Amino acid sequence: MQKSIYSQRIKAVAENMKEQAFSQIIVTSPASVFYLSGIWVQPYERMLALCLNDGGEAALCANALFGISQSQLGCELINHSDSDDPIAGLAALIKPGNLGIDKSWQARFYIPLASKLSSTSISLGSSPVDEARMAKGNDEIELMKLASKINDQVMAYIISAASEGISESECYSLVCKAYTELGADEPIGEQIIAFGENAADAHHSVSKRSLRSGDCALFDLFAPVNRYWADMSRTAFLHTASNQAQDIYGIVKQAQQAAADLAKPGVPLAEIDRAARGIIEKAGFADQFTHRLGHGIGLEEHEPPDVSALSTEIARKGMIFSIEPGIYIGENYAKLLPMGVRIEDLILITEGGSESLNSYTKELQIL
Amino acid sequence: MQKSIYSQRIKAVAENMKEQAFSQIIVTSPASVFYLSGIWVQPYERMLALCLNDGGEAALCANALFGISQSQLGCELINHSDSDDPIAGLAALIKPGNLGIDKSWQARFYIPLASKLSSTSISLGSSPVDEARMAKGNDEIELMKLASKINDQVMAYIISAASEGISESECYSLVCKAYTELGADEPIGEQIIAFGENAADAHHSVSKRSLRSGDCALFDLFAPVNRYWADMSRTAFLHTASNQAQDIYGIVKQAQQAAADLAKPGVPLAEIDRAARGIIEKAGFADQFTHRLGHGIGLEEHEPPDVSALSTEIARKGMIFSIEPGIYIGENYAKLLPMGVRIEDLILITEGGSESLNSYTKELQIL
Repeated sequence: MQKSIYSQRIKAVAENMKEQAFSQIIVTSPASVFYLSGIWVQPYERMLALCLNDGGEAALCANALFGISQSQLGCELINHSDSDDPIAGLAALIKPGNLGIDKSWQARFYIPLASKLSSTSISLGSSPVDEARMAKGNDEIELMKLASKINDQVMAYIISAASEGISESECYSLVCKAYTELGADEPIGEQIIAFGENAADAHHSVSKRSLRSGDCALFDLFAPVNRYWADMSRTAFLHTASNQAQDIYGIVKQAQQAAADLAKPGVPLAEIDRAARGIIEKAGFADQFTHRLGHGIGLEEHEPPDVSALSTEIARKGMIFSIEPGIYIGENYAKLLPMGVRIEDLILITEGGSESLNSYTKELQIL
Repeated sequence: MQKSIYSQRIKAVAENMKEQAFSQIIVTSPASVFYLSGIWVQPYERMLALCLNDGGEAALCANALFGISQSQLGCELINHSDSDDPIAGLAALIKPGNLGIDKSWQARFYIPLASKLSSTSISLGSSPVDEARMAKGNDEIELMKLASKINDQVMAYIISAASEGISESECYSLVCKAYTELGADEPIGEQIIAFGENAADAHHSVSKRSLRSGDCALFDLFAPVNRYWADMSRTAFLHTASNQAQDIYGIVKQAQQAAADLAKPGVPLAEIDRAARGIIEKAGFADQFTHRLGHGIGLEEHEPPDVSALSTEIARKGMIFSIEPGIYIGENYAKLLPMGVRIEDLILITEGGSESLNSYTKELQIL
C-alpha cells in the first residue's frame, strides 16, 4: 500500500480522538501500529509506542533493534537502545490533557509512564483506533476475502483427508502444509482440531487422539494471509452420527444461519448474539453454548467488535466478524456421549446487508 | 510435577512479598501462572489472574472457557463467563494495602481494576515471582539441559545441511522438522536464519535469500521442550571467510568466552555485559554491538534477569541466561561487506561457578 493510506488513517483516528475528547493517545499493539504506519514489529518486552495527537501529528518511539528507518515512516521516529530508559523519551512527548492508553499495553511501561505524568488524566484509549479498524477499507476487504477463500480450500482438503485412524496431530500437520502451500503467513500457529469427546472442550489443544467411527470431528482453522486473518469452523462425523448428534448439528446450523440472516447495518451485535443463543436455549442447551457468538477479525484474529451479550456495538458497513455458535456436551450430561459441534463463518457487513466470506458447505457431512 | 511443588513455590513467593512489602499481588503472565499452579493458559483478550496474598493464600480468576477445573488446582478457582464483567470478581478479592501488578498485565484489565480500588496503593509487582523463577530448581535445570541438548543437535544438523544455494526459508523448514522429530513443543515459532547482508540485522526475519560462496550464515535457534526454552546462535561461512570476517568472528568468540568465564555467583550481570562489550569496543566495533549481552530464559524465551548495562541483578546459583555478543556490519561501514556474527550459549550459574548448557563447537567453521 502507498504511504498516503497511513496518513489518511491517522487523520481518521485524529477525528475520532476529537469526538472522544482525547488530546493524545499511545498506540502499542503491533496490529494498530502497522495499521497506522505500515511497520510491523512484535516488540515482546521491548517498547514500541506510536504517540498521536488530535491534530494528526504522530511520533513512533521504538527500540533501535527493531531496525525501523526514518525513510520508511510518514512520521517522526524516536529510537532508543537497550541501554536507555525508553519511558523518558515517551514521557517528553506527552502534553497536559486527556491521554488514552492502548488496551493491550503492558503494565511494565504504563505504570512508570503514569508516575511521570501526575498532572495528566489517563484512561483506556484504544477506541479511536478500534473505531477506524472496525470499518474495513476496500483493500482490506479484498485481502480478507482472499484469506477466507484459502481457508475454504484448507477446510475442504482436511475434511476430505479425515478418515478412520488419522490423529488430530496428523490432521494438524496436513493443515499446516496446506496453509503453507496456499500462501498463508508462516509460521502457522496452533489450530483447534478435536475428535469425539475432545470436541466438548471449545478450545481443545491438538492431541494424539485418532478418529473413530461415530466420532464428531471439529475443525476450527485460522491463519493470516498477507497479515489479514481467516477463521472458520466445521464439524463432520465419521461413518455415522447418532440421532441426537444430528439434532445438535441441526440446532447449531439453524442458530448460525439465524444470526447471519440478521446481520446488517444498524443491528446491535448483542441482538445477533441473542438470535443464535435464543435458538440454542429453546432447544435446551443454554448451558452448553459456553462462549460469545463471535469476534471481529482483521489484522488480529480477535479484534473489535465483540459479538456477545455484552457488546454495545451496532453493525455497520465494513465490519467483519465471526458467527460461531456451538454446543458442547461434556461428561455426565443426560445420556449423550461427550462431543461438540461448532459452525463458523466470517460475515462482512455490506451497504444493505451482509455476505459470508466463506462458501464451504454447512450441510451435515458423514465421512 | 506433584501438586506440592506449587504450594512450595507460592510459599516462597509469599516470603518475597513480605520482604518487598506487598500485601497482595496479581499474577497474569501465562508462564508465571503455570509456575505457581501447573495450569498453562494463553488467555489472549480474556482474563486470567492469580491473586496471591502475603500469607500464601491464592485464588485463580479465570474465564470458564479455559476449561480449568477446581480438582486440578491447589487453590480456589473463581470462574467467569464471556457474559460477566471479570474485573468485578477480581476487585472483590483485593484488600487494602500494597497491591503489586504483573508487569505484563494489559491496560484493558488494569485500568478498570485501578478505578475500582481508589484506596489501594498499586505498583509494578512482578518481582516476588521473578525472584523465585530466576533461581531454577533441580527439576527445571534438568528440563533446560534436555532442551539445550536438543538445540545442539538441531544446530549441528542445520549447519551440516547448509550448502550453496539453499535458502533461509528452506533451512527454516529443515529446522522445524528437526525440532519436531526431536520432541520440541509444537508449533515451532519463527527463527533467525540470516545469510550474508541479512545477518547485519540482529533480528532478521527468514527470507528467500540463498546461501552463496563467501556468505556468513547466522543461525539463532530457539524452541521450548516440555515448556522450557533453549536458545543458541552460531555463525558459519560458506567456502571462504575474508580476513576481516575471520577477525570479527574471533572478536565475538573472545567476547563470548570472556563473559562466560566471568559468570559465577556474586558477579553483577552488568559487569558480565561490560566484559564482553569492552572487548568489542576495544576492537573498534562499539556501535556494531547493538543489543544487550543476554537475557534470562526458562518458561519464557526472554525472562528475568536482564543481562545488560542497565541490569541491577547479581549472578546467583540456579540462574540461567544467554551470553550472546554480536557484531553487525551494516551498509556503508568502512570497506566491509554487510554481514553479522553472533555466538550464543545458555549459561547456568552453579554453586561455585557456571556451566554452559550448550556443547556444540564455537570454533570458526568454513563449510
